[in-house]
Parts: sequence; C-alpha cells; structure tokens
Amino acid sequence: MRRSSLGKLAPVPIASVRLDDRFWAPRLQTNRTVTLPIEYEQLKGTGRIDAWKLDWKPGMPNEPHIFWDSDVAKWLEAVGHALAAGPDKPLQRRADRVIAMIERAQQPDGYLNIHFTVVAPRERWTNLRDRHELYCAGHLMEAAVAYYQATGKRTLLDVMCRYADYINSVFGPERGKRRGYPGHEEIELALVRLYRATDDERYLKLAKFFVDERGRRPHYFDMEARARGEDPQAHWAGDYDYCQAHLPVREQATAEGHAVRAMYLYSGMADVAAETRDRKLLAACKRLWKNVTERRMYLTGGIGSTRHGERFTCDYDLPNETAYAETCAAIGLVLWAHRMLQIGRDGRYADVMERALYNGVLSGISLDGRRFFYVNPLAVYPRALTEPSEHLTATRQDWFGCACCPPNIARLLASLPQYVYSQARNEAYVHLFVQGSAELTVAAQSVVLIQRTGYPWKERVRITVQPDEPAEFTLALRVPGWCRGATLKVNGRAVGAARLTRKGYARIKRVWRKGDKVELRFPMPVERIEAHPKVRANAGRVALQRGPIVYCLEEVDNGPNLNDIALPRTARLRAKCDERLLGGVVVVTGKARRRDASAWPNRLYGPSASRTRSVTIKAVPYCAWANRRPGEMLVWVREA
Amino acid sequence: MRRSSLGKLAPVPIASVRLDDRFWAPRLQTNRTVTLPIEYEQLKGTGRIDAWKLDWKPGMPNEPHIFWDSDVAKWLEAVGHALAAGPDKPLQRRADRVIAMIERAQQPDGYLNIHFTVVAPRERWTNLRDRHELYCAGHLMEAAVAYYQATGKRTLLDVMCRYADYINSVFGPERGKRRGYPGHEEIELALVRLYRATDDERYLKLAKFFVDERGRRPHYFDMEARARGEDPQAHWAGDYDYCQAHLPVREQATAEGHAVRAMYLYSGMADVAAETRDRKLLAACKRLWKNVTERRMYLTGGIGSTRHGERFTCDYDLPNETAYAETCAAIGLVLWAHRMLQIGRDGRYADVMERALYNGVLSGISLDGRRFFYVNPLAVYPRALTEPSEHLTATRQDWFGCACCPPNIARLLASLPQYVYSQARNEAYVHLFVQGSAELTVAAQSVVLIQRTGYPWKERVRITVQPDEPAEFTLALRVPGWCRGATLKVNGRAVGAARLTRKGYARIKRVWRKGDKVELRFPMPVERIEAHPKVRANAGRVALQRGPIVYCLEEVDNGPNLNDIALPRTARLRAKCDERLLGGVVVVTGKARRRDASAWPNRLYGPSASRTRSVTIKAVPYCAWANRRPGEMLVWVREA
Repeated sequence: MRRSSLGKLAPVPIASVRLDDRFWAPRLQTNRTVTLPIEYEQLKGTGRIDAWKLDWKPGMPNEPHIFWDSDVAKWLEAVGHALAAGPDKPLQRRADRVIAMIERAQQPDGYLNIHFTVVAPRERWTNLRDRHELYCAGHLMEAAVAYYQATGKRTLLDVMCRYADYINSVFGPERGKRRGYPGHEEIELALVRLYRATDDERYLKLAKFFVDERGRRPHYFDMEARARGEDPQAHWAGDYDYCQAHLPVREQATAEGHAVRAMYLYSGMADVAAETRDRKLLAACKRLWKNVTERRMYLTGGIGSTRHGERFTCDYDLPNETAYAETCAAIGLVLWAHRMLQIGRDGRYADVMERALYNGVLSGISLDGRRFFYVNPLAVYPRALTEPSEHLTATRQDWFGCACCPPNIARLLASLPQYVYSQARNEAYVHLFVQGSAELTVAAQSVVLIQRTGYPWKERVRITVQPDEPAEFTLALRVPGWCRGATLKVNGRAVGAARLTRKGYARIKRVWRKGDKVELRFPMPVERIEAHPKVRANAGRVALQRGPIVYCLEEVDNGPNLNDIALPRTARLRAKCDERLLGGVVVVTGKARRRDASAWPNRLYGPSASRTRSVTIKAVPYCAWANRRPGEMLVWVREA
Repeated sequence: MRRSSLGKLAPVPIASVRLDDRFWAPRLQTNRTVTLPIEYEQLKGTGRIDAWKLDWKPGMPNEPHIFWDSDVAKWLEAVGHALAAGPDKPLQRRADRVIAMIERAQQPDGYLNIHFTVVAPRERWTNLRDRHELYCAGHLMEAAVAYYQATGKRTLLDVMCRYADYINSVFGPERGKRRGYPGHEEIELALVRLYRATDDERYLKLAKFFVDERGRRPHYFDMEARARGEDPQAHWAGDYDYCQAHLPVREQATAEGHAVRAMYLYSGMADVAAETRDRKLLAACKRLWKNVTERRMYLTGGIGSTRHGERFTCDYDLPNETAYAETCAAIGLVLWAHRMLQIGRDGRYADVMERALYNGVLSGISLDGRRFFYVNPLAVYPRALTEPSEHLTATRQDWFGCACCPPNIARLLASLPQYVYSQARNEAYVHLFVQGSAELTVAAQSVVLIQRTGYPWKERVRITVQPDEPAEFTLALRVPGWCRGATLKVNGRAVGAARLTRKGYARIKRVWRKGDKVELRFPMPVERIEAHPKVRANAGRVALQRGPIVYCLEEVDNGPNLNDIALPRTARLRAKCDERLLGGVVVVTGKARRRDASAWPNRLYGPSASRTRSVTIKAVPYCAWANRRPGEMLVWVREA
C-alpha cells in the first residue's frame, strides 16, 4: 500500500470493495452492461477506435480529432475499473484488442498520438496551449494504470511508460528541453498515478515540473505562439486564465477559466503536494478549494457557470437557467475532493465529494445508462431554449461530437468503490454510506468492514467490524455536513457522536473485535436550503434537500410554469418512498401556492392584484430528473 | 395634408409643433447641440463620411461596410427633423455638404451604395438576404424626405427618386424584373414615405411588392443563394424567420427573428395597408401587434429577448438580466405603434408608444447626450458581465462598430414633436402630454392647441383650444392605459371622463371657441406592476411604475446585491420630486427588507434561517439609470 507523504490516508482500492446497495450497485451494473458497450459502439461508429490503425489519409472521412485519443482512453480506464470490481471476459477481450491497436500505434521514439501522427505530423508539440496533446497522453496513462491494476496486464502500462519516458526527454527544466506545459491539464495527475504504480520518481518530477512551470514569465504560450508565427495577444480564449496559466499556480487564489481544466490541475497540484510534502502548494489548493466551494459551486456540486468558455465566472455568480455545470466538471470536483480528503482527512472535502456524486455527476447520465447530459442547469424551460446547442439540451443525448462526458461518467461510476473507504496505518475511514463490504489493511492486518444501510433514502447505517484478530485502531466515520443530530451506537450503546466528531468524522479509537457493531443514525428531515445572500439567482428561493439528495420539481409532476410556484415558509414537507418511481426514490410533497393564470386578463402587465391558489407540489431527486416526459425542471423554488 | 385611406388620422408635422416642457425639450436641445455634432465627428472619424467620395481602394484603411450608408442617412434624417423644429445654420451647412457628396456618388444609372460601388462592385443585388443594400437605400430615402420637408431643398430627394426609379426598374413582379426583397427591411416604409412626399404611385406599388413578395415560394433567398453557388440550407442565421421571410407576411401570426427588422417590416406593412386599404394586411399587423405587446415585450417597451440574433424568442420569455432589448428595436416599436395609432385611433397603440418612448428608448442615451446603450437589460450586475461584448455593457458607450443605435435615437428624438398630435378632418388628437403648442388644421381651419403640464412627473394637463373661428370638431384626448380615475374638466366644469372615453381617448365633440380650456388629471400613485404568470422571470416580483415612468433600483442609491431586496406587500411607497437629481426627476422611496449578509456564515448553502433587516429603498426612472456611478440596476424587485 502506497502512503502519501502529506497525510497518511490512501483510498481502499476498487478490488477490495464490494457494493451491493440499491442506489449505486444497479448504477454500476448498468454502467458495465449497458453504458460501456454502447460507448464502445459510439467510439467505433465515429471512427475513434479504428483511428488507432493510423491509416487515415487526407480526404478520407472521420479525420481524427485532437482529443479522440482521450475518449478511447477514458473508456479503457472505465473498463479497467469495472474489471477491478469483477470479471467480465467479453469486455476484457474487447479492451485487449483496443490496447493491441494502441500498442501498434506507438512510434519508434515512444510518441503516441493519432492526430499528430496522421493529420498534422509536423505540428507535434507546436501548440500545447490549444491542442490537447499532453492531455491525451495523460488519459492514456490513467487508463494504463487502471487496466494494469485490475488485470495485471502490463501491455498498455509499458506503452505508456515508454511514452512518458519520451515526454520526459522533451519537457523539463533542463537545458535543451522545452519548458512547456499543457493548455488542458490532465497529465500532471496522470504522471503521479503512473509514479505510484511504477515507483519511477521521474514521473513525479515531471508532474511537478508541469505544475511549477505553469503561468511563469516569460510565458511559454507566448513564445510558442510566436514560434508559430502568431500574435500571442490574438489568443482565441482571450486570456491565459482560461487555462489557469495566468499566474504561477502557487499565486492563484480564485478558480478561473475552464472548469474541467481547473479541476484536473488542482487535482494534480494536490497529488504533487502530497507526494513532495509541498505545504505551499497545498496551501494554494486550500485557497482554491475555499474559493470554489464557498463562492463558485452550485448546490448540486456543479461548477462552471457559463457556457462561454465552459468556465468559472465570478464569486456568487450562479445563474440557474443558464448554468453550464458540465458533467465532466462535477466529476473533476470529485477527483479533487477525493485527493484533498486523503491529505486533509476533513469531512468538508467528503461533503463536497458526496454532494457532487449524488447530484451534479449523476444527473449526467440517464437511469438506463444510455443517454447523457453535457450541461446540468438547475432550471430548465425547454420552450425557452431558443438557442439549443449540441450541449445545451433539455433531454439527455446519445452522444456528443465533443464526447468527453459520456466516457468520463462511465469511468467515474466504475471507480466509485474506491471513494467509499480509506485506510491508514491505524485508521479506517468510512467516507460514504453504501451497503456492501470492504477489506482494509489496518493495524498491520486485514480488517473487513460490512456496511448495511438504505442510504441515501434511509437514516440508519450499520457497520460490522471484522478484524482478523482484535486490534486497536481508529474507526473514523463521516458525519455528513448536511446532518444535524447524528447519533452513534457502538455495540448497541449510545456514545456521544457530537463529542467524538472532529473535522467531520466521528473517530472511535478502541480495540476492535470480530463482530463489533457500530450504528449511525443521520436524521433526514426535508431541509429548506438557502444560498448565501450574495447569490443573486437564489434570493428569495429555497432548495429542498434530504440527506445528500438535492430535489427538483419537474413539469411531469407539477405542470408547466414551475417558477410561478411559491412555497410558503410554513408549508409542511413530507418525504415518502415511492418504490415504483425512477427505480425507487424518496419523493417530497407539500402544499404550495401558484397564481391562477386562467384568471389573469389577456395582458402582459398590470397592477399587482393576482390571486393564488393552493397546489400540491411533488419534488424528485435532481439526479433522476429527465427520465420521464420532457419538460421544465426547477431546483430553487420561490418562497412565499 | 395627406390622408390615409384606412383611418383618417395624420400626424401633425414637426414644423407645426413646439415643445417647451422640462422633460423632452432639454433632451431635444441636447440632441441638436451635443448629440448630432458628436455623431458627425464619429461618422467622420470612422471614415463613414469620406467614404461617399468613392475613392476607397483595396488595401486602404476604413473599408466601407455594407451598412455605413445607413448610419450617415439616419444622421441626415435627424438633422432634417431638427431643422424642421427650428433653424440651425451650421448644422444645415454640414448636412448640405454631406448631401453634395452623396449626390456626386450616385452612379449614372441611378444606383447609390458605397460598399457595392467601391468594395464589391460585381456583387450588386447578389445577396439581398444578408447585405443591407435595399436597407441602406431605404434610410437614404427617409433622410431625403425629412430634409426636403424641413428645408424645401430637393437635392437629396431628387437623388433618391432617381435611385428609387432605378430600383423600380430592377425589382418587381413584371417579367424580366427580380422578385427579390431585402433581408433587412426598411425600404418598404421608406418607399411609402417617398410616395407620400412625391405622390408618385410607383413607389407605393414597389413597397407593396416588397411586402407581398416576402416569404413566398419558391423562396427568393434560396434561388439567390444557389445563384451565388451556396447551399441555401447553410444560411448562417439558420432559418428565414430570422428576417421574417419564413412565411408570406399575411400568414405570419407571431413576431419572429431580428426585432429591429421585424419592427421595420411591420411598420411598412401598416403603411402599405393604410395606403392601399388592405384590410387583410392590416389584420396581419394586428395579429402581430397582439403577439408582441401581449407576450413578447418588456415593461420598458424593449423587445427582442436574446442577444443571439438580436431576436424575439418565444411567448413570455422575457429574462431580465440577459435581455437584449436593443435601443433600435424599441425605436422600431415606436415607429410601428405610431402607424397603427393613425389607422386604429386606439389608445392601446399610444400606450405602447408612450411606454417605449419614456423607458426603453430613452434609456439608450445618456442625459448629457454623449453616450449610448445598444442593449437595455432590466437587471444589470456589472461584476457578473463576464462575457461583455461591444454591445453588452454596464455603462453607455461613445460609439459602436455596428453603429445603428446612436443615429437612430438621434432621429427619433429630433422627430419627437410629430408623435404628440394627430389631425383629421374634424378631429384633433392629443396622444402625448408635453408642454408646448401645436397648430393643427381641423374643420378646415387653423386650430392651435396649447398644452401646459409637468407630465410625466405631474398629474395635471391643461389644454387651451384656439380655433381661428368657433368651430365644431372632436377633441380626442388620450386617457393613458396606466391611469385609473382620470378626471376631465371643460372650461372648469367636470365632465365624465369615463363616459367620454372610447378606445383610450376622451372624445369631446362641441363647438370650440378661442380660449376654451380643458383640464385633465391623471392620478399618479406609485403602482406595483405584476407580469403575466407565464413570464417566469418576473414570478414573485413587482416593478414600480408611476405614470408612464418605469422605475429601477440602482446600486448607487441602494448598495450592491439588489436582488436580495424584498419589498413587503404592505410597504408604503412615496413619490417625491428631487430637482437636483438626474436633471430633476420624481424618485420613489419605501421600506423594504434584505438579508443581513454580514450575519451569514462563511458558507455557500445552509438551512433556511437567515435574518432580514429593514432598509429604505430609493427607485429612480429607468430611463435615467447609469448616469451616475456605475453599478447594479434592477427593475423587477422581489416581493416579500
């Protein structure tokens, strides 16, 4: 088991975790049996698989795009994670065939990129700013590590080590090397992952170089643009903050630019900080974390407020209807939160991770695993979507030309087991509540944890601790930030959850024996959530949340014109499980008021005198919206 | 005096009207002495004046753009209107010099267009859909008529008649002529104006042809695109509804596409309907009117909800912060309303005309006449304007690359006197309440009307009627749609305003004698205006209006974060004149509540428990916003 230098936690790997709950397990099953196969078909049908044959010639259809490699890589990584959870021969054979193609595509010098081999062979490394070359390399490295860890097969890992060695010969601080770094980050975190899998410190050093070099003056992207004969000022994205290269990373204090890029960078920064014990770099991560999670994040864990540049805007600017909140960005937030959690052991990170997982990530895929959202607004009025784009749609789509999200959510779902537990020398952490079991290595021996729970719908979590032998260690159980009044019993006896809880975890240190039982109860009233007064979009509005689940109103349940619904401050809200709805969810109902549109005269404006009538509203989990008849959706409901 | 065939009203021309009130007269004075000179300097400085020399060659700076002619034309038209109101020798000399340049630029065949003479001489009439050729011609025709009517000088009128004759030889239903029509309408209404000035029926016929031909199948724009070797399906604007050519105009029932184009078309349709007694065409105008004013118009008279295509979207889709509401579109609505009013004699048209004039038009220019808004949102958060464009700004600008708005508002302001009164054989109409006087021809003699009023700030309007000789006619006084409880006195004696009012006008038929006095009183409480329940952007919100004036909150008066302010339903609102503010305006104050942001913990979301505190709000006229320190602005205030 690898240990970080900063913080001592490490995730319990997928192969050691089993999920058999009713919320996630069916999702993961669908992901493996439905989503991964249809995504392969899409990759195949669009030419992304065969592109690895490198036989594309100008004039042929399906010109390989600069980020096609990454789409296939994410799918391969997802397959790796899925195989770590359990065998699937056909899937593995399919992946092996793709890997064989990739291996054959590697150039003699180790280089490996479809576009820059067959489409623009003379442009290798000439435009790091815009062309996703190192980004593709990073995703392939992640795939290689995942596939190797799941199957023990080294083919792709060896290919990617050769490629990494080659990249290391091209980039770095040494004389004669390029001081460049990617416009779209990803390789930083991937190199750390490769380092952790191979123990080859050069990869960590290269990751650190990419992180450190970013945003320094003279600016590499300026020099690179001039070398191409272009004016650096004429950068299409306007400024380097678009790709977080406006300042050296240690000087960055606000989350700027393209949200997915930012998340991948910050994740890489956290990785490098952990492995190199770089507290200054970690401090930058923490500053950026505060900025994102206290000022620039949707209630769903979505981030990146605007479609223009798919980017962050400014503090508290979180419009609902025009929210971009790309699925990939919420996934990136999970990746970053997970890293910060291992270092900081602080429930605030797990809270955000959970928020994104149960809401803004999961909304990106349909219940049947076949359709995807690229953007995840918090209010949708299909009739007003007068400028729909490929990404801005009121219904999930089969695929996208820019297909980053579908394979990204597939790999995230396939890797979900690794987010549930962490282990350290004398500590076992439970971050998420998912029925199932895990085998940890704690106190120098195997400790099995068995979770029984109906979370996120039910309040109770029972954990049975099964160490090989009695052993003293700390069992750290997350007490979610959304929860007030959690209770905790050990072997049936109440212990003070509040007293035990530090930084979001109830930490129980004792000699654990086989069969010891812990029971947690997280009261789950329907909460009315308010946003910070500076979030202008949510002034006078509340969102309904129960447990970690954010709710929304859908037109199919509440009729059109959802924004006219106003929830009285005193309205009682009831939660009720509906087994037949959306795969079995808890719905929230209550009495609200809305104007009587039929009584309104045929004019657009008039003196305030409208009458309201009572209506019963029904809210469903945001993550499950748009799985029935298309229509309006609203998270933040007006309060009357 | 010309009479329309449908309806019998005609506007009382500028030369017969004097305004000497405190609201408009200073605006018109500033327009003549400040705005028109600086606009000339802008036209000159950007090359738009010298372009008429036709000496531009490829490679030289300032390549004449396809719509430069229209910028100069609108400025000339404004000068014409200004000269109709009173002499201004320097302005007239300047205009004469420009007209002389235009005259010299006319080609031997009568053609007159800078771009298609010096930049793209072989592309004449090859792309009516996109290239503004007939649009420019129309604006020059309007300028010619205005200048001729103001000064009696025929130079430009003769030039434009020659050009119109040439256009008439190219376009029309006859064999050998092109069955084309403009992508950007304007020439239709201009040709009717030319017809009214010259009595040459060919111009009316040509206008009618352009109107009738629009949207017919086979589609001219398809044929034209194919002739250029282009795929008609590849039209950049997506569909012909962008330029109202998706259907024959008589079949159009909803306002679609680019809002300015729509307004110019509908104005031309109304003109053609009036002059040709075409009741079917008028019916189409009325249908479109209902759609615009009952479903697609901002409270300010702004229209065109989205920047994407500067266009209408769908019914009730009126977002405030992303409103486009181009200044030119509100001006176009005034032009159309004015025409519908002459035909229909219905106060509904005057109500919309007044709404746009006092709000969404006037917001387009600063109080000092030097700076302009292109877009006029109803909520502005400058810090969140993360994608500002030339047009989307939180402060007025000196000029724009696409400079349609500045000269358009100049010509509208200069022509304002013509909107105040209309006359018919035995009727005198007062549409707007502006202190001053007018000389009408009614009952076959001169009738002077003298208005004394502090409108829009004060409730009372006194009109003295001065016929040459006692004469029986109807004095029709508008009772504004916003007003409840208007009172009316004739020679000091109350008469039933409600009883006399039909279609928005109190119609007093009697023998009028010199010195007869009419007094109107329009109670002006501060009204809370609500929007139709289907306008989702305004659910739970009210706008403050007093008289015709729409109010807004500005950050300079109310602090930042305006959307957090909530106005209790029971809050008393006071109106008070502040002579030192914004040139002297009535401000509205009241008690409201807002959250205590300082008491909010340092987190983005939390259970609903925030405390509010009492604040005094101060609202100022929307038309006068952004004349002080830049900051937030909000029209629709939340109601608590």
